[in-house]
Amino acid sequence: MRVVIAIFDEFTALDAVGPYEVLRLLPGAEVVFAAVRTGPVRTDSRALAITADAAFPDIDRCDVLVVPGGRGSREFLADPDMIAWLRGVHATTTWTASVCTGSLVLAAAGLLEGLPAATHWSAAAELEALGAVYTAERVVFHDKVVTAAGVSAGIDMALALAARLTDRTTAEAIQLAIEYDPQPPFDAGSPAKAPQAAKDLLEAGLRR
Amino acid sequence: MRVVIAIFDEFTALDAVGPYEVLRLLPGAEVVFAAVRTGPVRTDSRALAITADAAFPDIDRCDVLVVPGGRGSREFLADPDMIAWLRGVHATTTWTASVCTGSLVLAAAGLLEGLPAATHWSAAAELEALGAVYTAERVVFHDKVVTAAGVSAGIDMALALAARLTDRTTAEAIQLAIEYDPQPPFDAGSPAKAPQAAKDLLEAGLRR
Repeated sequence: MRVVIAIFDEFTALDAVGPYEVLRLLPGAEVVFAAVRTGPVRTDSRALAITADAAFPDIDRCDVLVVPGGRGSREFLADPDMIAWLRGVHATTTWTASVCTGSLVLAAAGLLEGLPAATHWSAAAELEALGAVYTAERVVFHDKVVTAAGVSAGIDMALALAARLTDRTTAEAIQLAIEYDPQPPFDAGSPAKAPQAAKDLLEAGLRR
Repeated sequence: MRVVIAIFDEFTALDAVGPYEVLRLLPGAEVVFAAVRTGPVRTDSRALAITADAAFPDIDRCDVLVVPGGRGSREFLADPDMIAWLRGVHATTTWTASVCTGSLVLAAAGLLEGLPAATHWSAAAELEALGAVYTAERVVFHDKVVTAAGVSAGIDMALALAARLTDRTTAEAIQLAIEYDPQPPFDAGSPAKAPQAAKDLLEAGLRR
């Protein structure tokens, strides 16, 4: 089973690495990080680079395609070559997945037209402008497309996907392997739960 | 504030990238991935490489040091040069942190002698053999050292650390930014919760 994680300049690292850490443990999985060209790809913070071991033109099929999000997703989705590549590979997949604003890319490729989809809570309007129906859920399955909410939601998505690709016991064994028994110290992970002061601070770019 | 994430051959990606994604959002944070030499460092799966932008000898101080785990932690902790470097940098930190079997490295450096510490549930005996007192908690603070349980626990650890480095509202804003409102599809993230079939499957190397 070939899993391709499509990365691009200014992607968000955890969007990609969360699903990677789950899917790479699937029996028989071969995970490949791919980008427009091989070599290091910088994330949105510029402080981290992940190596693309394959270039998009060298990949014409895969079983699972994962598109992370991040600031750079807007440039990625505006590139006709990338969208054409994505549509071509999507035609071969068993599952096409996105995390965070990766769903904007899927929407731009026409894969979410009129369909329910998740994205980072701050990108709901952008997603709707691209033709999808924003759904404030953590993971949304529709046909063979699965979209996850922001950043850390990729872990939940990948575990749910792992169960569909194999079986529940395998997914549970992977959850145990990554000791995913989340105990956030605060309960501020969604706009509905975060205190107003935290929302205001984030809105201000975390600057006081 | 300088955050150094010390990576090594065959580390586990999510151990490092979970804390990175939280700590890089701290106001004024400069995050640096460092390794024995600069360039790509392969994770335990070999399918992912993260670039080390700094070499250990070039770093003699930092505010926060994060040591991830992974299979390669055993080789890392057996290298006297690395342990000497770690001890030297630890002397300068405000916080020294580990995720997963990164705590084995801290223990080998003598930082956990007789002290309570977390690690991946499967490495409890190894941790105790290195002089620490294994504690089956997700995040353990002791003086200026904080140790987290396996892999995904680094996210919880980093949020708790973010609050101590700044304040609760900042940590909550970061939690909202990464939409960390975990909803695992299963409840198998610790040995106490996982079904026996999942434990057996993991024990068998996920092979049926």
